Amino acid sequence: MEIREHTTKAFAADLQSLNQLVAEMGGYVEKQLGDSIDALVKLDRDRARRVVSADDAVDELQRKIEELAVTTIATRQPMAVDLREVIGVLRIANELERIGDLAKNVGKRVITLNGDYMPRKAVRGMKHIADLAQGQLRNVLDSFARRDIAAATSVWTRDEEIDAMYTSLFREILTYMMEDPGTITLGIHLLFCAKNFERLGDHATNIAEAVYYMVEGHSFPAERPKADTTTGIRLPITH
Amino acid sequence: MEIREHTTKAFAADLQSLNQLVAEMGGYVEKQLGDSIDALVKLDRDRARRVVSADDAVDELQRKIEELAVTTIATRQPMAVDLREVIGVLRIANELERIGDLAKNVGKRVITLNGDYMPRKAVRGMKHIADLAQGQLRNVLDSFARRDIAAATSVWTRDEEIDAMYTSLFREILTYMMEDPGTITLGIHLLFCAKNFERLGDHATNIAEAVYYMVEGHSFPAERPKADTTTGIRLPITH
Repeated sequence: MEIREHTTKAFAADLQSLNQLVAEMGGYVEKQLGDSIDALVKLDRDRARRVVSADDAVDELQRKIEELAVTTIATRQPMAVDLREVIGVLRIANELERIGDLAKNVGKRVITLNGDYMPRKAVRGMKHIADLAQGQLRNVLDSFARRDIAAATSVWTRDEEIDAMYTSLFREILTYMMEDPGTITLGIHLLFCAKNFERLGDHATNIAEAVYYMVEGHSFPAERPKADTTTGIRLPITH
Repeated sequence: MEIREHTTKAFAADLQSLNQLVAEMGGYVEKQLGDSIDALVKLDRDRARRVVSADDAVDELQRKIEELAVTTIATRQPMAVDLREVIGVLRIANELERIGDLAKNVGKRVITLNGDYMPRKAVRGMKHIADLAQGQLRNVLDSFARRDIAAATSVWTRDEEIDAMYTSLFREILTYMMEDPGTITLGIHLLFCAKNFERLGDHATNIAEAVYYMVEGHSFPAERPKADTTTGIRLPITH
């Protein structure tokens, strides 16, 4: 009885540490993403360099979470909802690491874009999709902190907005490239940046799924909103 | 004593199942990748559709591996090298899932490319980078099966070849796009495909790192070959 009680308390302490680490990692990645957006919109290379170098801390946090999660599973042998909590935390850390990579990739591209002129309308478009992605990240981190499955579900269903925005931005940038081949190189990097924000939205919905799973013990009941038909892959190509 | 022996045997059986599942998943992903390359080079939309639909099986295998790994850690409480084996398997399954996603994305793009004319030189270039990536995947899966750290190290160091190939292909496709703006849309999709193969190489090196860690208990001794300066991000942009 006493041993069980000790294990329960020790597990609760481990879980609290894991949650704190994920919150910390989420905060880091949010900051990294915000900086990458600012760097892109203002073509600020110094800030872009900070975004790139910040990624090591994010990777380090993921390793730390992975280690603690594995130790927790091995020593506390959690079951049912407790085990789901630990697995959910592992999955979220994995998604956050990927989001950090995407922000870093935006930073790396900005570093190369110095001196390039970006049409004001494209700047607005990039800012728009980036803000949508950032909003999704913020909301899904909140849903994790509060274990709020309504908020998680809302993130999951709103991913379509980012996909639609990506399709429209893809077309717009393509138009610039067609009209002025001098903008092709810039356009390519902007397309890759836009794609990064679109993928970031997918990772936010994966986190939403993890939060749902932690609370409910299964995945979202319906099909995931189809991210694929509107990623700009089909539409801007077949015609 | 008897309980310990039982646990040891049970752990060995779990580990064998995990290894078999990873080998199976590796085989699937190799096939998926090979099909995506064929589909791209021959612009074979049917095959591309099969590549896309094959991804569900890969995702399913990853979930299965994750579940069994977690159960193994919770019930057998492995330590030291045994624990490293399970964590290594988890990491490799994660990387394979990402490789499957990249092959799927190539497939999705091929579906939209029907009827587009691809310059023969670009086809050769795409085939070359894809074959390099496929070779890295094959070699790293072999290194995992044989726990061969020399082979893993070789995969790790050879990633630079893919990066260099990507840079050269990036420039080539860019040239087509500049010369004939009618090829811009096709060019963009080819660039995304090429980028997928380049990233695939990064995931192969991550698997190599996981194999090294499983055997040696720590990461590669030297710095990872720098994948970033040659990803085509900087070179084709600053000039």
